[in-house]
Amino acid sequence: MKVGNRAYRSVWAEGPRGPLHVIDQTRLPHAFETRHLDSPEAVAEAIRAMRVRGAPLIGVTGAFGLALAMDRDPSNAGLAASVKRLAQTRPTAVNLAWALERVRAKLERLGPAERAAAAWAEAHALADEDVAINAAIGRHGLPLLRGLHQRLKRPVNVLTHCNAGWIATVDWGTALSPIYQAHDAGVPVHVWVDETRPRNQGLLTAWELASHGVAHTLIADNAGGHLMQQGRVDLVIVGADRVTRRGDVCNKIGTYLKALAARDNGVPFYVAVPTPTFDWLANDALADIPIEERSGEEVRVVRGLDDAGRPGSIAIASDVTPVANPAFDVTPAALVTGIVTERGLFEANEARLASLRPSRS
Amino acid sequence: MKVGNRAYRSVWAEGPRGPLHVIDQTRLPHAFETRHLDSPEAVAEAIRAMRVRGAPLIGVTGAFGLALAMDRDPSNAGLAASVKRLAQTRPTAVNLAWALERVRAKLERLGPAERAAAAWAEAHALADEDVAINAAIGRHGLPLLRGLHQRLKRPVNVLTHCNAGWIATVDWGTALSPIYQAHDAGVPVHVWVDETRPRNQGLLTAWELASHGVAHTLIADNAGGHLMQQGRVDLVIVGADRVTRRGDVCNKIGTYLKALAARDNGVPFYVAVPTPTFDWLANDALADIPIEERSGEEVRVVRGLDDAGRPGSIAIASDVTPVANPAFDVTPAALVTGIVTERGLFEANEARLASLRPSRS
Repeated sequence: MKVGNRAYRSVWAEGPRGPLHVIDQTRLPHAFETRHLDSPEAVAEAIRAMRVRGAPLIGVTGAFGLALAMDRDPSNAGLAASVKRLAQTRPTAVNLAWALERVRAKLERLGPAERAAAAWAEAHALADEDVAINAAIGRHGLPLLRGLHQRLKRPVNVLTHCNAGWIATVDWGTALSPIYQAHDAGVPVHVWVDETRPRNQGLLTAWELASHGVAHTLIADNAGGHLMQQGRVDLVIVGADRVTRRGDVCNKIGTYLKALAARDNGVPFYVAVPTPTFDWLANDALADIPIEERSGEEVRVVRGLDDAGRPGSIAIASDVTPVANPAFDVTPAALVTGIVTERGLFEANEARLASLRPSRS
Repeated sequence: MKVGNRAYRSVWAEGPRGPLHVIDQTRLPHAFETRHLDSPEAVAEAIRAMRVRGAPLIGVTGAFGLALAMDRDPSNAGLAASVKRLAQTRPTAVNLAWALERVRAKLERLGPAERAAAAWAEAHALADEDVAINAAIGRHGLPLLRGLHQRLKRPVNVLTHCNAGWIATVDWGTALSPIYQAHDAGVPVHVWVDETRPRNQGLLTAWELASHGVAHTLIADNAGGHLMQQGRVDLVIVGADRVTRRGDVCNKIGTYLKALAARDNGVPFYVAVPTPTFDWLANDALADIPIEERSGEEVRVVRGLDDAGRPGSIAIASDVTPVANPAFDVTPAALVTGIVTERGLFEANEARLASLRPSRS
């Protein structure tokens, strides 16, 4: 999508074998900076430090990281070690493991001399596929918004949590893709943007929507339930880090609370994901999905711009205040109206989702 | 309660007719400062700017403000104008209107020359009654925590939202009063403290609990549902700005989301209020209670300490980002396990609450 007048992807290689660039999302929304990643270590750091974030983007960036690793050491040992190191950067992100596995499967069948070129080609293919997948998610989600607009005869109010926009993918986004497509198709949309403490990814969503010209309003995470009670939310749509075969959704902490409020107020609650986000092995989401516990500093220290407009931070609590910071929660399938994928819209239950399951797994 | 080694109330008059002091809560938790309020205008400013906050404290402070006004102009016109001006400082706070009405009722029967002394006496009486009421709330809530501890045979995990602690009252607090009393009685308690965006009143709660030595952990508002799913919350207790005769609860924005999660996970959800918090006239809480919409700056600008440890602020969003900031929400009575008052524990329904209703209204 566009930033200023230039079209960007969130990760891109200039040529067939690099150089590799990403948008440094830790600098957004206050500053737009790109970053040249010239080693697998730089890629690992970018994923770990959340310079790139969002399940699909992490997967594609990890694949490019593996290509960089093959430039240096395409041996069997080098391949195994690099996959392992990159996979450990974000253990909750199933797309990362999936993308790395896909590239590895290709490379294992090749001799070391052929691996680097093949890895770059496969990473490029993954990036292009991600764009196509997200565009398809948008096409399948668009009728939901168009239908609401036709019925309500006013702009459609959508609430979203965290950032599942184009910068969380290679392009288009997942949860925001139907919104962009509705906007581009002339369906009037207004988006309630959850701040999404502690990391405030909602500010990225607000930045994206402002850049694309979509009407939006930033709210504290606490406000969504009240807005639903007041009839001011017509639909909720979020992304996900994992979806189980039963349709349980693991997404950014706080998603579950919005799903509860949506059910209590009869507001449809949708999850938009590419099918690789499905974890066909997880059975009981609450028991089987490890929830990443992140640093308390994310809660204690808030980043933004200081009085002089310079990037800075402020401590809302001191180091002596104990803090817990679980990064994700599980929204049970019973709270999910539907799951929008690149292959269509599905009810969130095992029988309906089974058709999405790859025959091998 | 204590700050350092000195016992404080959150509002106090040194002598029978002042001078009046409050703790400036806009400076907490980073700095502890008291403020001398020498005029009704200073009192109004302190209420409006939330230097004093919390329904009971606002009421008592307003009463002292009326006493200061009577020192200056005890005429009938002066009395009417002062009540009106003070009542408008926080329209949602029913305690404020109640306290002002009570003082006015006393003063109307007196000649102007007697009014100032009577107003001070009545404000002092209100302050002392508030302390007694909150201590009684604690006594009635304590068995809930003691019972859980005896059953679970481990520390009791309580979640609270916003600050309904001693600094939100004259002393003891409402939601925190049972916690203080449990702690003092040797019942081990650990408190999950919701940050409570956008104004982060949870930091006041964490400050209070730390000062009193109660175990606690600060969390983002998004985390509570997940903690309940994991069985890590045994009880939720919050204060309220208003409770209707049917038991609907108007409290800080986000309370409703926690109540939904509590119901979904079988966690008891209690509201602790003095009986003046009941609004016996409100019928349909969602329709009848006006929800204060506060400035978007509260969402955009976060206050804390800068790198040098000085009070400062950081903008997480710029002025061009549209923001909505509803300050309260309504938790329907069906989600409330019980209401702890100074007169005992009551189920949240009209029949049970009727016995609390003053015979006049």
